[in-house]
Parts: sequence; structure tokens; C-alpha cells
Amino acid sequence: MKQFISAHDVKDINAIVEKALLYKADPFKDKTIGVNKRIGCLFLNPSMRTRLSTQIAAQNLGMEAIVFNVGSEGWSLEFEEGAIMNGSTVEHVKDAAPIMGNYFDILAIRTFPTLKSREEDYSEQYIQQFIKYAGIPIVSLESATLHPLQSLTDVITIKETFRETRRPKIVLTWAPHVKPLPQCVANSFAQWINAWGEAEFVITHPNGYELAEQFTNGANIVHDQNEALKEADYIYVKNWSAYQDYGQVLSTDPSWMLTNDKLKLTNNAKVMHCLPVRRNVELSDEILDGPNSIITREASNRVWAAQAVLNEILRSN
Amino acid sequence: MKQFISAHDVKDINAIVEKALLYKADPFKDKTIGVNKRIGCLFLNPSMRTRLSTQIAAQNLGMEAIVFNVGSEGWSLEFEEGAIMNGSTVEHVKDAAPIMGNYFDILAIRTFPTLKSREEDYSEQYIQQFIKYAGIPIVSLESATLHPLQSLTDVITIKETFRETRRPKIVLTWAPHVKPLPQCVANSFAQWINAWGEAEFVITHPNGYELAEQFTNGANIVHDQNEALKEADYIYVKNWSAYQDYGQVLSTDPSWMLTNDKLKLTNNAKVMHCLPVRRNVELSDEILDGPNSIITREASNRVWAAQAVLNEILRSN
Amino acid sequence: MKQFISAHDVKDINAIVEKALLYKADPFKDKTIGVNKRIGCLFLNPSMRTRLSTQIAAQNLGMEAIVFNVGSEGWSLEFEEGAIMNGSTVEHVKDAAPIMGNYFDILAIRTFPTLKSREEDYSEQYIQQFIKYAGIPIVSLESATLHPLQSLTDVITIKETFRETRRPKIVLTWAPHVKPLPQCVANSFAQWINAWGEAEFVITHPNGYELAEQFTNGANIVHDQNEALKEADYIYVKNWSAYQDYGQVLSTDPSWMLTNDKLKLTNNAKVMHCLPVRRNVELSDEILDGPNSIITREASNRVWAAQAVLNEILRSN
Repeated sequence: MKQFISAHDVKDINAIVEKALLYKADPFKDKTIGVNKRIGCLFLNPSMRTRLSTQIAAQNLGMEAIVFNVGSEGWSLEFEEGAIMNGSTVEHVKDAAPIMGNYFDILAIRTFPTLKSREEDYSEQYIQQFIKYAGIPIVSLESATLHPLQSLTDVITIKETFRETRRPKIVLTWAPHVKPLPQCVANSFAQWINAWGEAEFVITHPNGYELAEQFTNGANIVHDQNEALKEADYIYVKNWSAYQDYGQVLSTDPSWMLTNDKLKLTNNAKVMHCLPVRRNVELSDEILDGPNSIITREASNRVWAAQAVLNEILRSN
Repeated sequence: MKQFISAHDVKDINAIVEKALLYKADPFKDKTIGVNKRIGCLFLNPSMRTRLSTQIAAQNLGMEAIVFNVGSEGWSLEFEEGAIMNGSTVEHVKDAAPIMGNYFDILAIRTFPTLKSREEDYSEQYIQQFIKYAGIPIVSLESATLHPLQSLTDVITIKETFRETRRPKIVLTWAPHVKPLPQCVANSFAQWINAWGEAEFVITHPNGYELAEQFTNGANIVHDQNEALKEADYIYVKNWSAYQDYGQVLSTDPSWMLTNDKLKLTNNAKVMHCLPVRRNVELSDEILDGPNSIITREASNRVWAAQAVLNEILRSN
Repeated sequence: MKQFISAHDVKDINAIVEKALLYKADPFKDKTIGVNKRIGCLFLNPSMRTRLSTQIAAQNLGMEAIVFNVGSEGWSLEFEEGAIMNGSTVEHVKDAAPIMGNYFDILAIRTFPTLKSREEDYSEQYIQQFIKYAGIPIVSLESATLHPLQSLTDVITIKETFRETRRPKIVLTWAPHVKPLPQCVANSFAQWINAWGEAEFVITHPNGYELAEQFTNGANIVHDQNEALKEADYIYVKNWSAYQDYGQVLSTDPSWMLTNDKLKLTNNAKVMHCLPVRRNVELSDEILDGPNSIITREASNRVWAAQAVLNEILRSN
């Protein structure tokens, strides 16, 4: 694997899921593969699970992980081609990235969308410029429109917990939130479930919250949440801001919060969320503290997803 | 040892002191005990010595240490049961802690008191919720009311430097400061010296600065500093804000600053402080730069205290 | 080597350059020399290349590197002798430094000048007090007036790329910038090129931007940039604020920006810059993206400079 930016970078999703589950069973089985290799983890935005799980995954493979908080530990980067840099940005990605490429063997980057310009965010200019200029494999720790390490984890968690031979019904449902959030996790989940192709996949959200078709194509989109949840095996709960009316909060309708009453409509569905979750806004306490939540397992699987990805990249170089 | 939150978690104080001094003599003697083990160090508040010494102690045992600055690198945690999270907190400890418990073998946490609600601070709800939800051993890097790694270090330093067979006289004295500080270090020192039980222990402070009796019981409390200092072998200097009139600064009386004149009252006492110290406010330059100060030794011993504690926890798991 | 603060700490510049180039050819050849040794990297100011390259260099030698962001992760230090610390500084360097000296084998420090008091900045009181009180070897990661790891890197890069037997002509040219910057990099480059002694060395800048003679003595100072650039083999581009009219921006004259037109005056000169660079303010895009720029190579060499310095210090202890 040359990079890990989206589902399209993975040839065989089932194979990488299998690899991740082998690491879960035996975390240190490839402990020397990364010796004398180094991953740089650049955070342009906050991170907890992604930050920690990536460091742990690298260490499990014998790699050194070096974390750098762009902005607080260093300075603001410029991404505009031809910019006359007399403002607040201090260094151009064209100058910074090639040096990272010489310092590290793999470069992992987190960068959020602005939620102001859809065109700019969906061009993925930040991570694309790192890819263009760094000259080494780039791993997305969440970019403007996608969060592939999360989505790989989600597929791992579904495959790990689904014990039947039939295809599971998976429902991605929008949930209320107090702030405008990126579409990344929802986009990425849709992209991966579609690419995986082994589920019945339904997306439900209020009118106006349609996601970009490049990611949802293949899913069944239903605007009645109750209808969508029927017979679901997995419910993936997530807020996102509008894609059409870009970055806007169009609804905070509390009836979209997932509760035990709604669970009754499902096939005793397992409930997933990428975290952090706003309790009693997106999901009720009763669900998060109840038997259907597999959220801790899901977040814990982040380590094995990252470890499988880093292994694939190390083996290709 | 299953956790390290207070003196009550230690069965035999003299034994753990002995273990720490063995590490001081030979830091790398247990260098493989922590291989493939990982400690997460979560800082909800600033830290210098605790941060550095804990990382060093872990490394000396062959463990990986991963540091995470909650807030600046991640986001604010919610600790309220049943909270409707539509405000500024982004993630509930109930969701975050179990994941930390899966990522790490030991979780070390620093969290300061609010100094606003005594009931809340003294319930130790922050660290108690990590204990409740993380499912792995928790080490306090200073909590709302106690600082056990500091106090273990203090006992180590006293045992290391006291050469006589009699019981030392140890005086904990309040000192002026410009800001309201937690009671943690004073509470904790009192708790440990009482639990250790091998000293004559006196506490001195202005009226109104009485500490919680659950920690001071067993100590002789004297309000005349000069009287208290007589024949002291060790003086532990520390500011704290009021416990009764909770979190208030009742006095900044400079006559409570420790000076060489006051040292003359003592048995050539050694002077201790947990640092950071406000020079010429809590303690005069002449003492800090003079022969009676053992403050550098004390702070340096932080490594061996942490290493002994981590070893005890690793051995119990 | 007992410390690395300026060119004067190096006995034989060519020998240490040679050592660095050997590390570039074989980064892990001394991988066990630093085992059980630890370097503390204290950042009082932001840093990217210096931060990353120093960690990498230490790891390449088998050392543990621990990074500490003074201020954001800890608290503000006091440097004034005899200060009554009732203000915003929380800990005196006299108390903090000796503990660092016990925690670490080498202490590396970044501290910027105030650009307010020339006397204070040029006394280098911050780093000098760490030297005085830490009791272990100190490595400058850029101090108030010098940046020796950068300058060593610069000499490495010149020696690595100059293929002729004659002495190269090296021109240090001032460039415009939007903010007042330290004189460190320019001072240090001048000091090292003069100490190295194997080049024809010219400095060019607008009137009023004269650097301190203690560093420039030996260089030819020319105020006409075009005149200075004639037949240059290397151009080192850097902004600095005024030394005489201390810390002031006296000119932002865009005609001092280096462009391809100016390159035509030179002997097809290679262009250097310490980074971060303000594109199209200090240097035009055409140069930075063109064949004469050796800036990526230069920044990448930072690792080998740091590794050679750490090796010299480890061997002396």
C-alpha cells in the first residue's frame, strides 16, 4: 500500500480486516518489522483516539512515533499556490512537506475541513499537497472529507461481532449536535461499507442533510428514521453538518436522538459511534450504558486498524 | 498494588522506600519488566517534575510512556452523571476511560481541584471516575486533594538523609503565596507522615488554615510558627488555600516566609519543598541557595518513587 | 565536547562535518552509544525542524528523547537573580535547572530573544543560567543570539555540495520580512563561516542592519546587494531585525527579495535558507521551486548535524 487516504487505497478490505484481527490476537507478532523506521504524526487539529492508537500501533511494530502539534508547537502552514506570504502563515507546505519526507518513513496527518468553502474542503488540498510534496507514504488521521482509519475500524468491528451467515443490515443515522461538524466520518463510513459490499446499507437523515453522492452511491437513502431502523443489525450514529447548504446546522430536532424506544424497531441492533459522543444529545445514556453499545470495542479496535495499515505500508517500501 | 491514589494503597511504606533507593543505586536493574507494557499519562493540568519523572521511571522499566495533554491536544471531559452534553464538554469520562483502559496497561492522571466546591473536590470525582471506568490500575499524578508520588518521594528523601537512630522531628509549615493553591501537597504529606509513623510530626499555619482532619489526625497542630520550628530536623514548606473557608487566601503575612533567622530555632533543619517555589515569597533566596536546602535532591528522587510504584503495579498484574 | 552553544565549542569544524556525513551515509552505525542515556528537549519557543531533527538524532544513537514545552505544558520560568516572585513567573531557573540536570544526561534548550533589551539578549542569560545551574552538557536549540545546530548544518551542506578545489564565495544576504526577527541565524552563520575559514565570505544588507562585530569580523560587508552577489557560489538568504536600533524593522524594501534576475549575477549560486521562509517576500517562488535551491537538502541535514553533536557529547562524558 502506497498511501492510506480512502477505501480506494485498499485492494482487499476483508484481507486487511483479517490482518487487524490477527494483531488483536497477538499485538507484538511483527515487533521487528518497523525497527529503524519512523512515523511522523502531524496534528493540525485535536485528536485523542487517533493520536493514541496510531502511536501504539507504530510501537507495536517496533517503529518510533514522533508527534508534532502544528500550530501550538510549531507554526501555521500556508497551502495556497503562489501566495505572497506577508500574513499570518509562516511556512508553505511546499517547503515543509519534503523535509518531513526526509525525516520520516511514513507521514500521518490530521487536518479538519474549514466548513466554509465546500469546494476547497472537497478538493482535499491540505492532504493532497502533503502527498504531492512529501514523497513518502501518507496516512490520513482524518482529512477534510474522510476518516479511513475510523471506517476500517468500523468494518473490523462489524465483522468481528456479526455471527450470522446472511448479510447484516447496517443503518447510518444522522443525530443532533450543538455544533456544525464535518461530514468526514459519515462520508467515509458510507464509502467503506459500499466498497466492502457485504451488507444491506441504509442511510437516514433529515431533509437537507444529503451527503455527497460520490460516497453514498450504493446505499439506500431513507428520510424516515423509524422506517430505516427496522430490522437493523447495526446502527451507526453520527452527526454531520449539511453538504448542500455547506457547513450549516439545519436541524437540532431531538426526536432524531437514538433511544431504547427506537432500538425496539431493530433486530436488537448493535450501536456504534466514532466518539467523542455528546451524551443525551446524539445518543441517550441508556443506550451508551446498555448492552447494545459496542462503542468501547469499536474505539479499542482503532489500534489494530492502524497497525494493519502501517504493516501494509512498511511491506510495500 | 492495584492503584496508587493515597498512602492507603501502600501496605509497607518502608519497603517501597527501600525499593526506590535500590533503583536510585541502579536505575536499569529491572529494565525488562515493563517490555511490551504501556503507560498513558493524561494531563488535565500542567506538570513538569511529575511529567518528566514518570516518563523516565517508565522508560527505566522498559515501558513505553505516551503523554496526552487533555484539552490542548484533545478536548474537555465531562464528569457529571446524566449530563445533557449540549455545552462545552465534548466527551464523557464514562466513554473515554474504558478506551484508555484498553489502550494502556497503566493509566496515570493529573487533575487539579476547582477550589470552588469543597464537596466536589474532596469527593475526588475526577480520579474516582477514571478508577471506576478505566478497568486498569490508576496512578495519581496529583489529584484534587492528594499528591502521593510527591509524598512518597518526601519520605524517601527523609529516610535517605536522616542518619540518627532517634525519631526525627518534622514540621510542615504554611508559607505565603500570591495565588490560592490546592491543599493536595499538604494533605498528602500529612497523610504519609502519619501513616509512616516514625516521626514526631508538627503542623503550623495561621488561624483559618486548618487542613482536613482525615489527613492531619495524629499530627500536633501549633499556630505559633516559631514555637513549632524549635528543634525541628526537617521543615516542609508549602502554601495552601483555606479548607474551611474553601479556596480562600486568608493571609499573605510575610512573617511566615521561612528565613535563615527562623532556621536558627531548629536543629539545623533540612528544608524541603515540592516545587515550584516562589522565591522570596515562600522561602528566602538565602535558604534555597544555602546548605540546609535538600530541594534538588527531593525533586530528583521523584524518579525513584515513580519507578518503585510502577514496579509494584506491574508485579501485581 | 562539554556543551554546544557556539562555534567556539567545536575544536575541528571539518572533523565534525565529516562525522555528520558519515551518519548521513549510515544513520544507525552508532545505535548503542546512547543506550540508557536520556536527552531532555526544553522548548521555551516554537520549533519544527529543530524539534524533530533533535529527537531523530537522539533516537538514531539509541537515546531516549523527552520533549517538554515550557509554558504550555508546565509554567513560566524566572531568570532574574534575587527576584521577589510575586508576579507571573512560577519557578526560578535556579530551582528548575539542577533537577533537569539530575533527570537527563544532556539538556537541549530553545529560547528566543526578547528583541526589547539588546543587553539582556546578548548576555544570553537564559541559556547561560541553564549552563550554570544544570550541571550537565547543554545543547542550544537556538538561543537569544545564536543557532549553532543550524550553522553546523549549513557548513555540512556547503561542504557536501561544493565540488571544486578553490574556496567558494559565500554571500549572506538580508531579505525583507513582515515581522521583526532575531539576529541569531545571521550571527551564527557569520560566526561559523568565519571560524571554518575556508571561504570568501561577504555579508550584504541595507544600511542600519549591521550585525554585531563579534560575529561578523572577518567577513567583507557590502551594502550593494548586486555587487555582493557577483560570482557567488552560495547565497544564504535571511531576514533579521536591526542590531543597532535594536529589534526594529528599518526596511521592507522588496528589491532585496532574491529573484532569478539576481541569480544571473552569480556563479549559478546555490541558494540556502534556514526555514521557515516567507515565499515571495524573502525569496521568490521561482527560486524556491527551481534548480538552485538546496533548501530541502539543508533542512534534512539538520538530523546529521545534531547526531554528530550528540555523539561528541556522549563520548566526552
